[in-house]
Amino acid sequence: MAHTIRDIATALGAEAAGNLDLTVSCAAEPHSAGPEALALALDPKYAGGLAKGQARAAMLWPGADWQELGLEAAIFAPRGRLAMAGLSRMLDAGPAIAPGVHAMSVIDPTAEIGAGAAIGPFVTIGAGVRIGPNARIAGHVSIAEGATIGADALILQGARIGARVTIGDRFICQPGAVIGADGFSFVTPERSGVEEIRSTLGQRDEIREQSWTRIHSLGAVTIGDDVEIGANACIDRGTIRDTAIGSGTKLDNLVHIGHNVQVGRDCLLCGQVGIAGSSRIGDRVVLAGQCGVNDNIFVGDDVIAGGATKIFTNAPAGRVLLGYPAVKMETQIEINKALRRLPRLAAAVAELQKVVAKS
Amino acid sequence: MAHTIRDIATALGAEAAGNLDLTVSCAAEPHSAGPEALALALDPKYAGGLAKGQARAAMLWPGADWQELGLEAAIFAPRGRLAMAGLSRMLDAGPAIAPGVHAMSVIDPTAEIGAGAAIGPFVTIGAGVRIGPNARIAGHVSIAEGATIGADALILQGARIGARVTIGDRFICQPGAVIGADGFSFVTPERSGVEEIRSTLGQRDEIREQSWTRIHSLGAVTIGDDVEIGANACIDRGTIRDTAIGSGTKLDNLVHIGHNVQVGRDCLLCGQVGIAGSSRIGDRVVLAGQCGVNDNIFVGDDVIAGGATKIFTNAPAGRVLLGYPAVKMETQIEINKALRRLPRLAAAVAELQKVVAKS
Amino acid sequence: MAHTIRDIATALGAEAAGNLDLTVSCAAEPHSAGPEALALALDPKYAGGLAKGQARAAMLWPGADWQELGLEAAIFAPRGRLAMAGLSRMLDAGPAIAPGVHAMSVIDPTAEIGAGAAIGPFVTIGAGVRIGPNARIAGHVSIAEGATIGADALILQGARIGARVTIGDRFICQPGAVIGADGFSFVTPERSGVEEIRSTLGQRDEIREQSWTRIHSLGAVTIGDDVEIGANACIDRGTIRDTAIGSGTKLDNLVHIGHNVQVGRDCLLCGQVGIAGSSRIGDRVVLAGQCGVNDNIFVGDDVIAGGATKIFTNAPAGRVLLGYPAVKMETQIEINKALRRLPRLAAAVAELQKVVAKS
Repeated sequence: MAHTIRDIATALGAEAAGNLDLTVSCAAEPHSAGPEALALALDPKYAGGLAKGQARAAMLWPGADWQELGLEAAIFAPRGRLAMAGLSRMLDAGPAIAPGVHAMSVIDPTAEIGAGAAIGPFVTIGAGVRIGPNARIAGHVSIAEGATIGADALILQGARIGARVTIGDRFICQPGAVIGADGFSFVTPERSGVEEIRSTLGQRDEIREQSWTRIHSLGAVTIGDDVEIGANACIDRGTIRDTAIGSGTKLDNLVHIGHNVQVGRDCLLCGQVGIAGSSRIGDRVVLAGQCGVNDNIFVGDDVIAGGATKIFTNAPAGRVLLGYPAVKMETQIEINKALRRLPRLAAAVAELQKVVAKS
Repeated sequence: MAHTIRDIATALGAEAAGNLDLTVSCAAEPHSAGPEALALALDPKYAGGLAKGQARAAMLWPGADWQELGLEAAIFAPRGRLAMAGLSRMLDAGPAIAPGVHAMSVIDPTAEIGAGAAIGPFVTIGAGVRIGPNARIAGHVSIAEGATIGADALILQGARIGARVTIGDRFICQPGAVIGADGFSFVTPERSGVEEIRSTLGQRDEIREQSWTRIHSLGAVTIGDDVEIGANACIDRGTIRDTAIGSGTKLDNLVHIGHNVQVGRDCLLCGQVGIAGSSRIGDRVVLAGQCGVNDNIFVGDDVIAGGATKIFTNAPAGRVLLGYPAVKMETQIEINKALRRLPRLAAAVAELQKVVAKS
Repeated sequence: MAHTIRDIATALGAEAAGNLDLTVSCAAEPHSAGPEALALALDPKYAGGLAKGQARAAMLWPGADWQELGLEAAIFAPRGRLAMAGLSRMLDAGPAIAPGVHAMSVIDPTAEIGAGAAIGPFVTIGAGVRIGPNARIAGHVSIAEGATIGADALILQGARIGARVTIGDRFICQPGAVIGADGFSFVTPERSGVEEIRSTLGQRDEIREQSWTRIHSLGAVTIGDDVEIGANACIDRGTIRDTAIGSGTKLDNLVHIGHNVQVGRDCLLCGQVGIAGSSRIGDRVVLAGQCGVNDNIFVGDDVIAGGATKIFTNAPAGRVLLGYPAVKMETQIEINKALRRLPRLAAAVAELQKVVAKS
């Protein structure tokens, strides 16, 4: 679908110049942009690419000389990625899901589905499910009995929404995500080795045979508004209360959220992050890829953790973390420097010992 | 479904007091319990919540004064989580899967399915599959040709059981798990860089172009009794012999088990654990979340590894491990303490060098 | 299907001896081989097993005395795993997918599917999809609108191919893989805490509330020839340009490839590897299990990284890496040795300080 430069600039609240009636139908990198594309050159370093491509219009850094760059029109983006958010939203056609309910789907007659739904083939929707208006549900999705989903949901291929899960408005769920599997909770009849070493930090008096009895998950999962869940990510049910994800929080692919976990609002949990059972994550927490959070701990508001940080103990609000085990990022950077010099340090100490022994 | 306090106490083998004919239909945290709920206050710290909620009965710590707490009946749980296992089992309604075989499923006529099966929509079951009695198979599951599954299986949405996989009784499979994908096994015509550095530990004489030839997986996967597999977890087929998971072992979400791996009995492999090809894991091994096990190594019986431990070499039976690379947990805790002081240690050594150089 | 020893040796380009007309129908470990199996004893240490089994023929190490081992025929494999590749390919029956298109599938009439296709039940194929000849597509697979796939594809149960994804010839996709989910890309209206600490490496002047605006993924995914993708692995769409995977590259289970990532040719990315957005991986890179790559960095050709290596900064071509953060493997091995001695080193320094203070 084509948009005029004027319409785009207006939608973004951005300045524009040149022929505002020019239309574009897609976005492209400068060097590969065709004449129908809006080239994206949000930094002067991309200016050179414009000459190689055929774009007639571009989104440019503030102050760029668009005429000098050979363009007929330009939009100026003071904060490039924010402009990209608005632009990409306008240009995203979204997945093709035909309006209405596909004939090859199995919808329980007691399910209530709001107006404007588009439901693809091989979808199953269980008894008592309630889904708000304008839902787009791609093929192979399953939504189990008693689940409740708000307005404007987009649920992609093969996602699994478990029984009695509650989800707010504007939910986006990538393919293969599993929301509401049973928690991983097992107990031994007698004190287990794991319980023993948690108290002794490593010592074991006695090793005995033990097998595991399952604690069933009677709780479900509660998810706020404006949440997005990544592909093949997993959120387990709670044992008694629901596992909870706050409004505005985004989970990336292959993230694992254990049973009873409470995640706050506006968090970003990046690819392959794992949060063990019963931990609480505050608001606006950002965990980079492959971070891990121990069970039964608390990570405060506004904590940010760098890639692969493993958080074993409570983290106070606002702390910036790195490392395994997690320490303050600045401390870890110091440790890392010292580590690279550690073999030399050991040699220096050995040398000192010799010298001191002699004197 | 409602249960009397007497029935619950009897099922758990627990002491009870008060009006044993009182019925409850669910469990709840004390502060949010309605009058129909059994409140769970397994530790005195939860006692305060009882006054806020409306529970008439509770499961309490041994010795609790239930009348003082304003209750009409109580069950006493000397080992709370064990009692939770029994209670949650009684109260779990389980997934809604209608008895019989759904019309929109594709079951090969040569498949043998035991009595009492409940098979949901869009399920595929291949030629020669044999499934024991009382199987509950949710929608979108696929069970490929020649697979054998024991009695009382519960296989949830979209799980994939590969060809010729063999599984024992009381199997529980969470949504999206893939059992029996092909192993990740490739070889180069000439010695590869990986083979070279495995012997040199880092030195490479020559870097040459190489491409990968696939080794197909002719083996399958064999799984014992009482095994549970987490959501989106993956267990690969063996090359010649089967990859094997022992009875009583539980795998959490997103766990990866490589080809030829042998996991023993009664293990717990927590969220996002990965075990590389051809390694052997003993009995009763517990690997916390995000642990990794190198390929072709042996982890002995009763090993316990803390969160994100990376095991590169054989681990003797009973060892408690932590760290990257894994060392004894107590050693790692010492190392971690010393690491936090490492920058100061380096400064102290520099100071010593100055002092010694002067004298 | 049975093969003569002659046929197998010819196919492998290997030497053979004895009764070359003997037929075998499967491969087995020596001790468990039946009379119809080709025993695999590629190293003298497996010779003992032959006597325990019933194999009449075996694949042996070069120079083995097959008659002494009691065999009727033998094939000699100078590079055992390479021979396994050829042999396993001959013996792999592959998944049972009936020729033609299953009646219970939903194929858009505008999709073009090459000759010789086998498409299982509950498959969805969208508008404008083009698939080359001889495709084998197992049940529950979805291929979204506008995707293009080359010849000889094998796409297994429940894999998800997103809209406008482009894939070359001889593609193999394990169950549950998701190719073309939306990228994980969000921006705050004002500078976020993450942006701040990226420049300050840990210092935060001010913590303010922030919520995330979505950057939609307008790009798709482009995959070369001879690529294999593991079970439940995820490859996200690019923002503007396509995320790209080069020819000959293999991804293991649960691998995560972020948006805009460019992976070169003939790479091996092992189980649970994660690559954050916009990073570039060269050719013939091997990342062992659970490795992580930071966003927006470059990993050069022929880099090899050991298990769980976390790569935060650009890595030059040919570098062998280990550790968190990644350093040269030989450096990390030195550091690890020193780390185990670190508590003793600290004690030694304390002792030195005492001695020096006294003198």
